[in-house]
Amino acid sequence: MARRETAAGGPGSRALVVDVIRSAGAVSRVELTDITGLTQPTISNIVRDLLAEGIVRETGSSASARGKPRTLLAINPTFRYGVGFHLGADTMTCVAIDLTGGVVGREVVSRAPDDQLAERLAAQYDEFVAGLDLPRGRVDGLAVVAPTPPPGSSAEAAGAGSWLGRARGELRDRIGKPVIVENDAAAAALGEFWSRRISREQAFGCIYVSTGIGAGFVFNGALLRGAGSDAGELGHVSIRHDGRPCPCGNRGCVERYASMVATVDAARDRGELGRRLNLRGATSVSHAYDLVARAAVRGDDAALQVVDQAARYLAVAATSVVNLLDLGRLVLTGPGVALAGSVYARRVRAHLDETAHARRRHGVRVELSAQPRDAASIGAAALVVQAAVAPGHSPDPMR
Amino acid sequence: MARRETAAGGPGSRALVVDVIRSAGAVSRVELTDITGLTQPTISNIVRDLLAEGIVRETGSSASARGKPRTLLAINPTFRYGVGFHLGADTMTCVAIDLTGGVVGREVVSRAPDDQLAERLAAQYDEFVAGLDLPRGRVDGLAVVAPTPPPGSSAEAAGAGSWLGRARGELRDRIGKPVIVENDAAAAALGEFWSRRISREQAFGCIYVSTGIGAGFVFNGALLRGAGSDAGELGHVSIRHDGRPCPCGNRGCVERYASMVATVDAARDRGELGRRLNLRGATSVSHAYDLVARAAVRGDDAALQVVDQAARYLAVAATSVVNLLDLGRLVLTGPGVALAGSVYARRVRAHLDETAHARRRHGVRVELSAQPRDAASIGAAALVVQAAVAPGHSPDPMR
Repeated sequence: MARRETAAGGPGSRALVVDVIRSAGAVSRVELTDITGLTQPTISNIVRDLLAEGIVRETGSSASARGKPRTLLAINPTFRYGVGFHLGADTMTCVAIDLTGGVVGREVVSRAPDDQLAERLAAQYDEFVAGLDLPRGRVDGLAVVAPTPPPGSSAEAAGAGSWLGRARGELRDRIGKPVIVENDAAAAALGEFWSRRISREQAFGCIYVSTGIGAGFVFNGALLRGAGSDAGELGHVSIRHDGRPCPCGNRGCVERYASMVATVDAARDRGELGRRLNLRGATSVSHAYDLVARAAVRGDDAALQVVDQAARYLAVAATSVVNLLDLGRLVLTGPGVALAGSVYARRVRAHLDETAHARRRHGVRVELSAQPRDAASIGAAALVVQAAVAPGHSPDPMR
Repeated sequence: MARRETAAGGPGSRALVVDVIRSAGAVSRVELTDITGLTQPTISNIVRDLLAEGIVRETGSSASARGKPRTLLAINPTFRYGVGFHLGADTMTCVAIDLTGGVVGREVVSRAPDDQLAERLAAQYDEFVAGLDLPRGRVDGLAVVAPTPPPGSSAEAAGAGSWLGRARGELRDRIGKPVIVENDAAAAALGEFWSRRISREQAFGCIYVSTGIGAGFVFNGALLRGAGSDAGELGHVSIRHDGRPCPCGNRGCVERYASMVATVDAARDRGELGRRLNLRGATSVSHAYDLVARAAVRGDDAALQVVDQAARYLAVAATSVVNLLDLGRLVLTGPGVALAGSVYARRVRAHLDETAHARRRHGVRVELSAQPRDAASIGAAALVVQAAVAPGHSPDPMR
């Protein structure tokens, strides 16, 4: 790669260096110079700072063509930590990760009512960090993620995530650390990017299947945000212009065909299947969905047909996204792919193979998340870690 | 805005400063410091370089609250130029622009055969620049743009735009200037961004309606490129999962419903309209389309219904894109909106008003291009200008 003309090491350069070390696993200073295109003095300065801060450590050496062994640099995983909370309908998942995305703590608690949110979240943060025995000074803050409020809902009418936005300042004051607020699907995308060691050159997307459907995109190492930080509303991409009406006002939104809610509805519509799985007795949409997905995986033909049809619908929207953004890598995550993920991955791969432009020009890797149910909370914690060690990405606008 | 922590002025900082001056029109150094968040010494250094290179000039002064008048900085429009060629099916549009996107020369010539491409393009570049009496040293190079080869075509089988890619090195050697190759819709997006003085904070998209449909997106001042620089294939976003088959292998691609080709087909299917407009006598798809669009604008009910239906289909895909990327501003351009653009803009605005998430949280401005037929060639020239005066954006990977 041609050397860039400047030796200046702005925040973007530091973020680039951290990203290359993270995605490479272990890398020498000479390789860093080659890969980043930054000058040798810039690399030396940045690495010196990262070593001094404990973010990076030296980890053995590699043989070099020129004889002298080169010291390898790696992320120092246990030196700093991030905490992420994912607000679900009734519960909250709390996760702490280290600098490489490894989960060091996890807890599911009941969700606090909105009017006591800041107080309860702060108390939960304190308890969670103390319970894990993490040195408080090495925890870089908290990110709280939640679904974007549905259009037309009271939460939406009050402004985008405004209850969470209002709680944020108080929360920051209470815990004395930075607090980030983000959409759950976007956070999940950053978490997958961070913990999978994906390199920033790969245009990366993540589809989050839950009671709704969302997506997140990571380009050049940073979450893609839109004019109002609402990018990723994949659920409201129409797959049928004259299709099922959606509360958002549109028709044919893929959420009406392939979310967990839509799949449970489709199963209920097959009366015999619904009775056999006792869907009426389910305590929640998630519970009902899991009954259907588990039956599909165990070989129940009717259940498999329902899940497979949802996967086909999802594949149509996934292909549109891949065509529009020319993604090189796509991860499926969220509770909707926890049990029957392989059905979804198979359909998405097949549809991309048959149709996607990109697929003919370069591979489009389609993968399943290793932790689909926790992806949003892990992603939240990854937002904290990225903001702390690799600042310079487009900042969280609500921060 | 909080001051950023570093004073370093890498290529990204220079691009940021140029973008702020360009979008502001005229701005003082103090305002530049406030808007960019860069330190005062960094701004001083960058501005000094830009003045020395002639890219920026001082242009009067403004009153200041603190009493001392401030010198204003503006882009020096006529100091550097870019040339863009848009390869159409039979013709090539050649454009030269100045640093603010103003067109200083335009010519349409017949298109060279692919096997003599580099030689003929080089000769045309020489003649075009000489004919405009532009100082050759102030012309920063050439960008050649064309539609992405259709999937399944021989051009596609030979690799993405490979004939153009192969011609590029030879072309660069012949003209002795940098040569950029890009998709036409993506180039059009950059051209609209550049010449409309849009600020880099606005997530910006452009839809290009021609014999196919494409799109381009500008985020943080840079064209959004994907894993293979193929982002923007809006034409192959499906608006009906079980809809019309497309040569790409997919079904319901919006290109099959709303491109100029699809609209001409729809007009022909209404036998009476086709006969009345004598579509059989048209010399090309563009000619036939213009007959339909002109009739629609003049109040021919049947023609208007055909164009309006195409606009409704386009609006569905446009809404999906706005939801997915949370765009704040959208421009419609290309020969397909040259005559009946208001029909398309009305439908897109109406559909966004009824359905888009973003529209409820911030405005989504929908605008028509001022030069829809030349948007791709102007955009090509803008790519040259941006690469010359504001390097540091994600580079053209084929360069």
